[in-house]
Amino acid sequence: MSDTAATREERFASGMAVLDAMHDASGHGVIESLADIAPELGHQIVAWGYGDILSRPGLDPQQRELVTLGLLTAMGGAEAQLEVHIAASLNVGLTPEQIIEVFLQSSVYCGFPRALNAVGAARRVFAEHGLLPLPEA
Amino acid sequence: MSDTAATREERFASGMAVLDAMHDASGHGVIESLADIAPELGHQIVAWGYGDILSRPGLDPQQRELVTLGLLTAMGGAEAQLEVHIAASLNVGLTPEQIIEVFLQSSVYCGFPRALNAVGAARRVFAEHGLLPLPEA
Amino acid sequence: MSDTAATREERFASGMAVLDAMHDASGHGVIESLADIAPELGHQIVAWGYGDILSRPGLDPQQRELVTLGLLTAMGGAEAQLEVHIAASLNVGLTPEQIIEVFLQSSVYCGFPRALNAVGAARRVFAEHGLLPLPEA
Amino acid sequence: MSDTAATREERFASGMAVLDAMHDASGHGVIESLADIAPELGHQIVAWGYGDILSRPGLDPQQRELVTLGLLTAMGGAEAQLEVHIAASLNVGLTPEQIIEVFLQSSVYCGFPRALNAVGAARRVFAEHGLLPLPEA
Amino acid sequence: MSDTAATREERFASGMAVLDAMHDASGHGVIESLADIAPELGHQIVAWGYGDILSRPGLDPQQRELVTLGLLTAMGGAEAQLEVHIAASLNVGLTPEQIIEVFLQSSVYCGFPRALNAVGAARRVFAEHGLLPLPEA
Amino acid sequence: MSDTAATREERFASGMAVLDAMHDASGHGVIESLADIAPELGHQIVAWGYGDILSRPGLDPQQRELVTLGLLTAMGGAEAQLEVHIAASLNVGLTPEQIIEVFLQSSVYCGFPRALNAVGAARRVFAEHGLLPLPEA
Repeated sequence: MSDTAATREERFASGMAVLDAMHDASGHGVIESLADIAPELGHQIVAWGYGDILSRPGLDPQQRELVTLGLLTAMGGAEAQLEVHIAASLNVGLTPEQIIEVFLQSSVYCGFPRALNAVGAARRVFAEHGLLPLPEA
Repeated sequence: MSDTAATREERFASGMAVLDAMHDASGHGVIESLADIAPELGHQIVAWGYGDILSRPGLDPQQRELVTLGLLTAMGGAEAQLEVHIAASLNVGLTPEQIIEVFLQSSVYCGFPRALNAVGAARRVFAEHGLLPLPEA
Repeated sequence: MSDTAATREERFASGMAVLDAMHDASGHGVIESLADIAPELGHQIVAWGYGDILSRPGLDPQQRELVTLGLLTAMGGAEAQLEVHIAASLNVGLTPEQIIEVFLQSSVYCGFPRALNAVGAARRVFAEHGLLPLPEA
Repeated sequence: MSDTAATREERFASGMAVLDAMHDASGHGVIESLADIAPELGHQIVAWGYGDILSRPGLDPQQRELVTLGLLTAMGGAEAQLEVHIAASLNVGLTPEQIIEVFLQSSVYCGFPRALNAVGAARRVFAEHGLLPLPEA
Repeated sequence: MSDTAATREERFASGMAVLDAMHDASGHGVIESLADIAPELGHQIVAWGYGDILSRPGLDPQQRELVTLGLLTAMGGAEAQLEVHIAASLNVGLTPEQIIEVFLQSSVYCGFPRALNAVGAARRVFAEHGLLPLPEA
Repeated sequence: MSDTAATREERFASGMAVLDAMHDASGHGVIESLADIAPELGHQIVAWGYGDILSRPGLDPQQRELVTLGLLTAMGGAEAQLEVHIAASLNVGLTPEQIIEVFLQSSVYCGFPRALNAVGAARRVFAEHGLLPLPEA
């Protein structure tokens, strides 16, 4: 947010560093998969989304993921993106139980179908990480 | 709704009786599939959703399913839940033709894409029940 | 649905008869308010929505209103249209208590905020009809 | 919009001519797939959607597809319909690059997840048309 | 979550204690405003929403409000509920700057219109609390 | 999109020039109204939304507004933003009749309530511009 000039490539590199800190391979895969069809969308997700917005201070990585889980659950139809952010939530230290608690809470505001779809996304991510069954279950 | 005390397990049992009366195996499957990842969500769907709300008088089972088909069609992204409630709608005596009429009507309020997705869910349920082609078709 | 030829005006008149049977002045007001800006939209709501779709057999007027209340509640941002259909629901014989029960049920599938907004629409309609407080309250 | 009388079948034929001009086989497939379950929905999509509305003057086919791409992207959960309209957009002369630009623009108003889902739909259509990788990519 | 029996009134009282700890008068106002039209909805919001779900351990009050701000922003049309939860977010110790940061972040996932509506809700709450202009602004 | 370095202020100025070309006072008002509460959101709307995305070639201003009208109509709850873009659509040369045609078309994909809300937004903008009643009406 300083007034230092930055090139398009510098802004991309700066965003990629933020993305690297949050995501595992599934996050990178989204960007790479755009290369042959919508490379500018990939650039903007990295340079703007990660570089300009998600890099800002004020909320820590766990807080940001809690917000994002809420946003993606309520939107509906964003299960692919939810999977990426469930993995990111684990990465920044949220426990599987906390992630599931987010989805249980969402049923109060968005109803059971959105909560069930979100848990379905969690199932795919947790299974890949060898986390199932959850100990509390 | 009386003021009689009930335990957590009694409330669950009471909801399960309502669920049993409405759904076939697909309804039970949803609850069972949560056991290893989000058992509390399964408990709340049964104890609160079925036990406290759907069990209330004031609307009969066919009326409740008509409302639910409307809700799930308009939400979008709830096709899995729609399949469960299309089967429940047959269970409580709505005809396949009435269910399709609900989705045709929904196109007036939500447009053709939501109606088409709902009919796609109906196709999967009706095929499983050996109901296709519909006689009127 | 017969193969009898109908003119544009005949189709409109046929829809208007259906609209007349369902709605009071608030329904007509929607169509009239479009005259100076979007008369074709008004025509299509009447000729197609009411004339071609809502006039169909298969679901009776109470069943159709239950579906519509579900659709409009779940969509969100359709409170103006919900007011028109809450009035229509009273017109076709649903009780105020049944209408409120629809919105309570919707909280299971869409969460409390949508239910609260729908009850807010019901409050405006019920107050206009001198129905508040409801006896059960 | 003349006041000439038309039969149900004439209205259907008129809509089918509009559909033929816009869509390739994927558009026809939607209508045909409804024959055994919801033939009236298929009829109304053609006779009303294409015959009465999309056939109107005032917007040319490219303008109409731009609007439709916007509508379907923002709705979410309409990826199947988006595929049909991405193919139609190519049919009426929009370039693959323009279609991708629509989805990039949508991220400003609807966020990246809806844009990513729309690009996913474009990938399936472009691949089928042998258009990948795009030259600019 | 113990298996101790509880009456309907005990469950309500337990939820009301949670609501008291989170909300100021605007939260109570929602429940009271339902008394003459939908008292059962008010009961369920308190007894189930607050008593059974939001009272659970696993997420602390700040974490829960971050999730709720995300959910309500993405849903759209829930600005009234967002105002209540912006006030609750201040109550549990989130700063005005953090709340605004949540809405800026939401533009990445839901686009600028949803973010702008959420900031509009924050403006009304912050003004009432004498917090405007924000120091950083 | 060149690789020339730009400062934060240069990027803002570049976006403001695009915004100036599209919008009248209502567009500027949105940005100014954020100054005391969410100035960074205002900055990003201008620098990223207008400067990086809407300024891109590939779609002309009329095409971009057609897409935006589609997006905002389908989202629901974005009537304030729709008003700004209806005014912008007039600015870039779309006629009032074409704008209304967009909303009529939207009823095919999103249903009548969204179309009616969009026409309501158009009414407010057209009235302010002294355009009502429309000549065709």
